[in-house]
Amino acid sequence: MASLEPEWVIKAQRKRQTREDAVVRHSKLRAFLSSEEDVTAIANVAELYHKLESGQLTASEVARAYIQNLTEVLFDDAIVKARELDVEFCKYGKTVGPLHGIPMTLKDQFNVKDYDSTIGYVGRAFKPAKDDAVLVKLLREMGAVIIAKTNLPQSIMWCETENPLWGLTVHPKDPDFTPGGSTGGEGALLALNGSLVGWGTDIGGSIRIPAHMLGLYGLKPSSGRLPYQDVAVSTEGQEHVPSVIGPLARSLSSIHLVTKAVINSCPWKLDPKCCPLPWREAMYDEVKSRPLVIGLLLDDGVVKVHPPIERVLKEVAAKLKQAGHEIINWDPADNHRECIEIMVSDGGEDIRREVQAGGEPFIPHVEALVNKGKPISVYEYWQLNKRKLAAQKRYMDKWNSMRSLITGREVDILLMPTMSHSAVPHRRCRWVGYTKIWNFLDYSTVVIPSGDVSKELDPGNEIQSSYVPRNDLDRWNWETYDIEKMDGMAISVQIVGRRLEEEKVLGVAQVIDDIINKSKH
Amino acid sequence: MASLEPEWVIKAQRKRQTREDAVVRHSKLRAFLSSEEDVTAIANVAELYHKLESGQLTASEVARAYIQNLTEVLFDDAIVKARELDVEFCKYGKTVGPLHGIPMTLKDQFNVKDYDSTIGYVGRAFKPAKDDAVLVKLLREMGAVIIAKTNLPQSIMWCETENPLWGLTVHPKDPDFTPGGSTGGEGALLALNGSLVGWGTDIGGSIRIPAHMLGLYGLKPSSGRLPYQDVAVSTEGQEHVPSVIGPLARSLSSIHLVTKAVINSCPWKLDPKCCPLPWREAMYDEVKSRPLVIGLLLDDGVVKVHPPIERVLKEVAAKLKQAGHEIINWDPADNHRECIEIMVSDGGEDIRREVQAGGEPFIPHVEALVNKGKPISVYEYWQLNKRKLAAQKRYMDKWNSMRSLITGREVDILLMPTMSHSAVPHRRCRWVGYTKIWNFLDYSTVVIPSGDVSKELDPGNEIQSSYVPRNDLDRWNWETYDIEKMDGMAISVQIVGRRLEEEKVLGVAQVIDDIINKSKH
Repeated sequence: MASLEPEWVIKAQRKRQTREDAVVRHSKLRAFLSSEEDVTAIANVAELYHKLESGQLTASEVARAYIQNLTEVLFDDAIVKARELDVEFCKYGKTVGPLHGIPMTLKDQFNVKDYDSTIGYVGRAFKPAKDDAVLVKLLREMGAVIIAKTNLPQSIMWCETENPLWGLTVHPKDPDFTPGGSTGGEGALLALNGSLVGWGTDIGGSIRIPAHMLGLYGLKPSSGRLPYQDVAVSTEGQEHVPSVIGPLARSLSSIHLVTKAVINSCPWKLDPKCCPLPWREAMYDEVKSRPLVIGLLLDDGVVKVHPPIERVLKEVAAKLKQAGHEIINWDPADNHRECIEIMVSDGGEDIRREVQAGGEPFIPHVEALVNKGKPISVYEYWQLNKRKLAAQKRYMDKWNSMRSLITGREVDILLMPTMSHSAVPHRRCRWVGYTKIWNFLDYSTVVIPSGDVSKELDPGNEIQSSYVPRNDLDRWNWETYDIEKMDGMAISVQIVGRRLEEEKVLGVAQVIDDIINKSKH
Repeated sequence: MASLEPEWVIKAQRKRQTREDAVVRHSKLRAFLSSEEDVTAIANVAELYHKLESGQLTASEVARAYIQNLTEVLFDDAIVKARELDVEFCKYGKTVGPLHGIPMTLKDQFNVKDYDSTIGYVGRAFKPAKDDAVLVKLLREMGAVIIAKTNLPQSIMWCETENPLWGLTVHPKDPDFTPGGSTGGEGALLALNGSLVGWGTDIGGSIRIPAHMLGLYGLKPSSGRLPYQDVAVSTEGQEHVPSVIGPLARSLSSIHLVTKAVINSCPWKLDPKCCPLPWREAMYDEVKSRPLVIGLLLDDGVVKVHPPIERVLKEVAAKLKQAGHEIINWDPADNHRECIEIMVSDGGEDIRREVQAGGEPFIPHVEALVNKGKPISVYEYWQLNKRKLAAQKRYMDKWNSMRSLITGREVDILLMPTMSHSAVPHRRCRWVGYTKIWNFLDYSTVVIPSGDVSKELDPGNEIQSSYVPRNDLDRWNWETYDIEKMDGMAISVQIVGRRLEEEKVLGVAQVIDDIINKSKH
């Protein structure tokens, strides 16, 4: 008898069932855990690696401990790989590489041989990848254990996490709230100690937004620094504003360690788009050794940030000043607005084809996106590329002109908000200008958790009526302010460096993290 | 009374007259030359710099000596700048920078404040640039003296040098022959000792082709290594296959010296597209210290090279083998063909607009180019970007798989022809596959003069009838063979490295130049 359900629903049900089966099967492994210690509470790759290196923990124990917390499907493989690592360790008495036994998860874009890369489309379910992505190859060579792939929005092109195939991902603190996106599955899992290092992608804030909303650390490098080869993506071939990959974690040192490890494994030998730029330890160290010159951007001139965002940013700036660093006000002028306005479009053709191929319904925000831009001609496309380069040059000249008032040194990094708000209820995100500009300019950025929304410290909802919004987006943003429901939600600051200055932003992030989060560690 | 000539002809006449005036004015300066030595016969930047540094020559003397040989329009400025340098030298007793007094010329694309960048279009005449290109700024800061801008084809997009504005540039050895293009004005001037270092651009061979046809050295770096900012170009904004800048010269050491100087002046601080990759002296030195593994490509599988090209390449390979280097045969398979076939198009719109703006006639080959490609959609454009990346990945994998049979080391560089023929009569060029593939793949390449066509050593024209061509292009190429007229024409070899390996290809070029051209120096 034929089912009455549409075919895409049946496909999604089958896909979800494979996940359930894996969870049930591995839940029974709990008994095998030799240690009562909660391995997943360790937030730091170096700390866990030390326990593996010294033989206090085995790769299998770690893999099993993490699998308890998961909702995805690489468990059998993970256990097999972990056992192989344990055998190697027994045989030679040393780890196979700098990431030996470290559990990692991947946004469902990274190709893993024999597993799907759905990127949130029903039409891509049950179509396993033929080979590992370059990142996956490099991680595995260094001993990492991939334990799962995680959820993302239909088409990826949205800053929340929902699709017809896997459903809606929610914020661990409040199911009515979004964890952000598009790397939202990864973020939620990390926040729940379900992973130690998560790999995401970012074309407008997709690593930084979930990190910000969930109190995590995240790195968005410049394009060409980390390997994108064989990472499935929406609007693939679009090179106007390139998507990049990057890590999320519960500790900054983990971000630093895995980024350095991947760069030092020479991704440019396997990915034609990677730049042959080895890890520059001197650049990382140098910024930790002296007073920094820090540009402070409080407002992008388009959408004003919520009061708790401004408060936390000002607190961080004050602490930096107190620690001897110089803070220089950074005027967004029209630079931020113009960068967000330039946008190429294929008229939504790529996404429309994918959605139609699966016969699935559109997620409302994706549908709006698809119907927004009209297709342009190749000649017009080139004119937009010219405008982009001119805007990049203007921002570079601006950066070159900003100098320390004391030493005349140029600005090291820009300190600014990650978003105009903390986590919001589902389907309330609209403005990603604070993150997207750095994709457009291709600058390197890190976000670090810096505080929380606080009923005690922040104003009540009465501020809604006393503010005159600048525009519709600004009104929308201001109307989402709700101190009662947002109380306790995480807030980050964003640290921005020039193009391909990953070492510098990570070094500065360490300086800032030491100042503002020392007491926590 | 109104002229009967079309307006574009009048404009071109006025433009040419300004050149004549400058030449006449400066011819009278000859008497001022203090030295009878032919300064322009020095082919080497380091040698000339030594004479300037030690006070044997002044910057003014050098500038005037070079102006004698020129046909372009920056003379007044050049003399003023040279005098300024002389004053500085007198005052402080040292040079202002590593290029103090070194005369240089620029293809008519590089913006120089107050001068046109015509890129071969009448419509761009009498529209002076508002600022110097980043390269020009950096060169001037280091003390270089810009003495002229040189000819190029209408629209730049052709491998010969002709336009309605300035006319036809001919080969110094035979006016019926082309010097190649699009950097043909630069090439002809260098071959006539009219410049010491010439700066060109290359999107399909435009530096390497004139270098090959004129017995010069030329570097085509990967994109992002040298600054393109404020260099005017046709189809600007096209980022599928990026155009790059690079130097041409009469000595390899000059290419090495100026490339290193520009990279060490941190172009990435002024050009958003430049990669922050300092000059790697260790990479340059390393390849000079050991036996090399060299891939030898004799034939791209599409158009077979003329017998003299094959002879010279085999002679070079034999000498390298004799010197202890390992030669490995490199099969083009289908890799070369597929790379040439992938091409984006705006349907010729950009070039058509420019030609119409000047009211000038089309050069036949440019017209054919414009009418060749149909405009494609943005979605199709992205599919071509995907195909490009896949082809880049396949070539990378192929390179990774080619290993020394003795040591297992990977191949250092590829040795191959620059073109399928030496210089040919005007309007006979058709196949640039040997050069264009490296723009498509974005690899770094150097060409070095390696021999000449020889009536004694190469077969007579009877070989035309004994060869069965593979395709129309191959037939066209074979039919251009004419040993009588080509006798004595220069032939180069092309040295190819991976992406952004400029130091490596320049180091290897030095090894090869020392072996094959030692007796000449």
